[in-house]
Amino acid sequence: MNEFAWLIAPISALVSILLGLYFYFYIKKQDSGTEKMKEISSAITEGAYAFLKREYITLAMFVAVVSVLIFIFLPAPSIWSPDADLLKHAAMSLAYIFGSFCSALAGYLGLSVATKANAKAAQAARNGLNKAFPIGFRGGGVMGFAVVGLGLLGVSIVFALTNDPYVVLGFSFGASALALFAKAGGGIFTKTADISADLVGKVELGIPEDDPRNPAVIADNVGDNVGDVAGMGADLFDSYVASIVAALILGQVLNNLPLSKGVYLHMPLVFAGIGILAAILGALTVRVGKSGDPGNALNMGTYVTCIIFAVLTLSATYLLDYEWRIWGAAIVGLIAGVVIGMTSDYFTSDDKAPVLKTAQASTTGTATTIITGFSYGLHSVFPPLIGIGVASTVAYFLCSPLGTDYALFGIGMAALGMLSIVGLIISNDAYGPIVDNSRGIAEQAGLGEDVIRITDELDSAGNTAKAITKGFAIGAAGLTVIALLASFKSTAEVSGAVVFDLMNPLVLLGAFIGIAMPAVFSAMVMLGVGRNAERMIAEIRRQFREIPGLKEGKEGVKPDYAKCVDIATVGALKELMPPSILTIAVTLIVGFVAGVEALGGYLAGAIFSGLLFALLMANSGGLWDNAKKLIESGVHGGKGSDAHKAAVVGDTVGDPFKDTAGPSLNTMITVMSLVATLFAILIVDNNLLKLLGLS
Amino acid sequence: MNEFAWLIAPISALVSILLGLYFYFYIKKQDSGTEKMKEISSAITEGAYAFLKREYITLAMFVAVVSVLIFIFLPAPSIWSPDADLLKHAAMSLAYIFGSFCSALAGYLGLSVATKANAKAAQAARNGLNKAFPIGFRGGGVMGFAVVGLGLLGVSIVFALTNDPYVVLGFSFGASALALFAKAGGGIFTKTADISADLVGKVELGIPEDDPRNPAVIADNVGDNVGDVAGMGADLFDSYVASIVAALILGQVLNNLPLSKGVYLHMPLVFAGIGILAAILGALTVRVGKSGDPGNALNMGTYVTCIIFAVLTLSATYLLDYEWRIWGAAIVGLIAGVVIGMTSDYFTSDDKAPVLKTAQASTTGTATTIITGFSYGLHSVFPPLIGIGVASTVAYFLCSPLGTDYALFGIGMAALGMLSIVGLIISNDAYGPIVDNSRGIAEQAGLGEDVIRITDELDSAGNTAKAITKGFAIGAAGLTVIALLASFKSTAEVSGAVVFDLMNPLVLLGAFIGIAMPAVFSAMVMLGVGRNAERMIAEIRRQFREIPGLKEGKEGVKPDYAKCVDIATVGALKELMPPSILTIAVTLIVGFVAGVEALGGYLAGAIFSGLLFALLMANSGGLWDNAKKLIESGVHGGKGSDAHKAAVVGDTVGDPFKDTAGPSLNTMITVMSLVATLFAILIVDNNLLKLLGLS
Repeated sequence: MNEFAWLIAPISALVSILLGLYFYFYIKKQDSGTEKMKEISSAITEGAYAFLKREYITLAMFVAVVSVLIFIFLPAPSIWSPDADLLKHAAMSLAYIFGSFCSALAGYLGLSVATKANAKAAQAARNGLNKAFPIGFRGGGVMGFAVVGLGLLGVSIVFALTNDPYVVLGFSFGASALALFAKAGGGIFTKTADISADLVGKVELGIPEDDPRNPAVIADNVGDNVGDVAGMGADLFDSYVASIVAALILGQVLNNLPLSKGVYLHMPLVFAGIGILAAILGALTVRVGKSGDPGNALNMGTYVTCIIFAVLTLSATYLLDYEWRIWGAAIVGLIAGVVIGMTSDYFTSDDKAPVLKTAQASTTGTATTIITGFSYGLHSVFPPLIGIGVASTVAYFLCSPLGTDYALFGIGMAALGMLSIVGLIISNDAYGPIVDNSRGIAEQAGLGEDVIRITDELDSAGNTAKAITKGFAIGAAGLTVIALLASFKSTAEVSGAVVFDLMNPLVLLGAFIGIAMPAVFSAMVMLGVGRNAERMIAEIRRQFREIPGLKEGKEGVKPDYAKCVDIATVGALKELMPPSILTIAVTLIVGFVAGVEALGGYLAGAIFSGLLFALLMANSGGLWDNAKKLIESGVHGGKGSDAHKAAVVGDTVGDPFKDTAGPSLNTMITVMSLVATLFAILIVDNNLLKLLGLS
Repeated sequence: MNEFAWLIAPISALVSILLGLYFYFYIKKQDSGTEKMKEISSAITEGAYAFLKREYITLAMFVAVVSVLIFIFLPAPSIWSPDADLLKHAAMSLAYIFGSFCSALAGYLGLSVATKANAKAAQAARNGLNKAFPIGFRGGGVMGFAVVGLGLLGVSIVFALTNDPYVVLGFSFGASALALFAKAGGGIFTKTADISADLVGKVELGIPEDDPRNPAVIADNVGDNVGDVAGMGADLFDSYVASIVAALILGQVLNNLPLSKGVYLHMPLVFAGIGILAAILGALTVRVGKSGDPGNALNMGTYVTCIIFAVLTLSATYLLDYEWRIWGAAIVGLIAGVVIGMTSDYFTSDDKAPVLKTAQASTTGTATTIITGFSYGLHSVFPPLIGIGVASTVAYFLCSPLGTDYALFGIGMAALGMLSIVGLIISNDAYGPIVDNSRGIAEQAGLGEDVIRITDELDSAGNTAKAITKGFAIGAAGLTVIALLASFKSTAEVSGAVVFDLMNPLVLLGAFIGIAMPAVFSAMVMLGVGRNAERMIAEIRRQFREIPGLKEGKEGVKPDYAKCVDIATVGALKELMPPSILTIAVTLIVGFVAGVEALGGYLAGAIFSGLLFALLMANSGGLWDNAKKLIESGVHGGKGSDAHKAAVVGDTVGDPFKDTAGPSLNTMITVMSLVATLFAILIVDNNLLKLLGLS
């Protein structure tokens, strides 16, 4: 039975894809509402496709170039080497392309349904909350189950064909590099549109938010989907696949040990497969009664999934002769993920001190709003960082009685355990922007107070889910990159032990460069938003100036929405390239100049500062947002008060924090770790210091 | 000759103290100007003394408690141990008290002269720039030469009496703990006063800045001196002493090696002594001609000092039979310090892109001002972090042909080389707030346009010096804590090798806690400023409400300045305790729970994130400040424009960044490193994991 156990992975992956398709057609057959609603929804859909099409064309060129480089140089040293295995070179290159393709496909599916589901959920809300909720949740579920299904199916196919975790690494790199572009590009797009629309519309002309006269209004709506749905999906696709590949590499090491009984090579696939089954069962239990609370429904689904996962994996551990300690490590990771998610909810929840104090600080001005929110953001990094540290330590020590290699495998399985339920987490998260858009459509299409109240209730559950997912995503990325660091080390140990000793000055030098990178990356994408917004503001002003009757709202006069979407798209693609390429380039430069020890320090440094800034930016951005919403609900003078103006500035500062720079950082450190691991063997023998005889 | 060479240290230290006293009396005999000027100056002096007195009383209690604990527990394990050497316990405790005392004394001297020199420099400016400049520079010199003189004299005395670097560590801890309180306390005081004075005065009542009717105006002036002069002095005192003690500890290791000829134990003292002589000679060359540029004069002094230091230490290396490689390491450190200082000037200079772009962003609103400035702040961390990393790597590899222990000693000497010229650096820095205050006094006392123009010119040179010093201080702290990490490791190696391997989960757990600490510390002090400002705002409002005629500026009606100084003082002392004690407590908890490896990871993590945030906060704060000044000079609409309002918010956000949280972080990581090294031996054998048999 053991030798076929891993087949559970491709099988559940297929089931997951089928469930995603079922949800997709379920959504498709729902009513899209009035003509007005259809019109808004289809404008958003068109814009989103326009962005995605252009983004994918650009990325295809990038993928083509990189796949050639991979074909030439990986596995080490090059195709010109006398004993080069051309088949393996081709496999690496194809795995890379396949990874990019799967990630892109998951993003496309999720986005295409999310932009449809919004109007349908708004329409269903006219018949009550319990009619609208499943549309939002299942719309999100398309993304969730497509991500895990395509991810695990891809990994299974590559692994089945090659039986080599190192080739799966190529698949993972393809997914991650694409995710980096999707996050950074989507993040720049969404904030460009948001800031420009607000600055010209609300500030200069004094017209309301989401006013159809504003040429940027559709770009703004597109941005929500591009950033939140496609971006978050790509991010978690990337962490998910990376956690599986890290565990596969660490498990392969065990396979060479006499006592391992050869079962650990497949264990990550078995647990990942079970995770998908658990998430599917959990998702099917998610339902809200006639007067139920959508927030509770989402949380309940998560708990059910966790329990099913724990029980099924324990059974598998018994049946397949795994050590219970390694099962324990996976469960530790799972618990840590849920706990980290909960703490980030504390810092952005509008009935807890951080948001309350920040809202109060708005009454004494903008500066105090910024300082207070930023300070709580700084506080918020503590619990998750400790959580990641404790989870990896506990996983390690739980497994270390079996031996050091088992202990490292334990960390890998903890990351995998945390990410095993990610299908459900993404579903919950993608639910958020769908119902958020529903609310906007309900308001624009004039569906009345009752419907808006229902969509508000749906939306509020979505915000909590989103906060939890952000914390979860960062925690998962943290554990995953620690596992990747371990697999980088074990890959680099081709010719002797490698130690990342902090008193080795090369490790330290690497660490200093590594800690600077997330800061520089964040600066580049945020300044990119600024430059892009300038271009778009000029276009919005031009349209108001040159299109007669637009400003006055004359019947039949429409702004050129597509032009704005186009500018945001072109600009985002232009601005995402330098930071993304820098990330890959500096990683390779550090490695090829200073060797694997320096690269290990560099990865650790980047992990430390990447997690720090990701948490700081996600949470301070989230709490400024909610402080503003709290004031808008009538506290401290409500809308239009001085406190509100200050809170709006806080929210605007927080936007690129939480939606552009912050969420790209997870992906950035994953990409760095994958690049390092892929090139590890090449770097061991070919680095400048070694060639100069200095190391 | 060799055995007495170290006497150059106490001798130059004494010369330095004498030079400080000479400057002190030189300043004292200068004319303080009109009655009005004397009145303003003496109110500032009184307030500063009031703060210092109360701060020192509080700290004396803290010092008393800690000295008892040190007496009981250090050196390990405790006085109750059968073979405890009571004399050594007493020496540790006394060295600690002595260190606190020297640091406090240096702060007192510097502050007392700075608060006098301001009016005198303003008065001298009536006779021309070349009359006023020496008063500003020599006023700063009192602080500069008192710091290095007292620091090196203290180290020499403790070392001469005990011949044990470990006891000198106690002295260094005393200095650092005091510096942490001085930086955090001074930082909270100064921003409390600044924010409250502005909010009630400028915003609520619309009276000008520095208006004598404002009850907080004196507290605001006091704050500049307490934060910038006393705080920066204590900070560099602490780094200076710590760099010497780290080099002494690393040098002691060499002394046990056969080939070392026993000369390296004293080498740090010899080089530190030469550094002081070089700084004295450099300071004596600082002069500005009749039409000279004060900025050039300050820079020239720095270059002269560097060259003299390099030449004299090279001679000493030849005469005293040191390896030239170790001399090279010291010079590498020196060059790195100067280069790091220069790069931080780029990011805050008002004719370079960061400030220009931030000023331009102010034209599109507050949010873009904050985002742009913050982004450039993120960029600015890159050059200094690379500089610290490269300097320590080069120093290490330069000395590694001699052996690993020499290589670590090389890092220690690089830190010492960087800090050797610190006497001059502090003089240049303390010059800044003196001439800044002169400008204020000249304006308040109505000394006319010509005098104000001269003080402006003096002030502008001071700003550049200040920016360079901040970068230098962070770079110096960075190299010093790396050297301290090495001495922590060598101290902890009492019973076998210690490796800070990043793949050891305890090292990783420590690192995760460590990277969170500077964030939490910053959050606590910044939120402390907010709470303290609330109390002070209530008092200012009360005075305007209850003192008849105050608001109208009736002749003879004066606000109660002292009450405001008192509130800022009491509040600052209250708010500085929790973060400072937390810093020490968490360090001990990590050590006693998880052992020396975890503590090593913790220190490294804290160093990484501490330097990151220190640079980010210092530079973004500085560039917002200068963007505001640039707009006030007439660009983008000048004073009163919307761009100006946005820039003012940026400046206010930057204030607690650059003056409260940022500058405390250097000191925080030094204190952590010293605490860890002091308790290293105790922790090796007494930690929870070891007792539980888990490590």
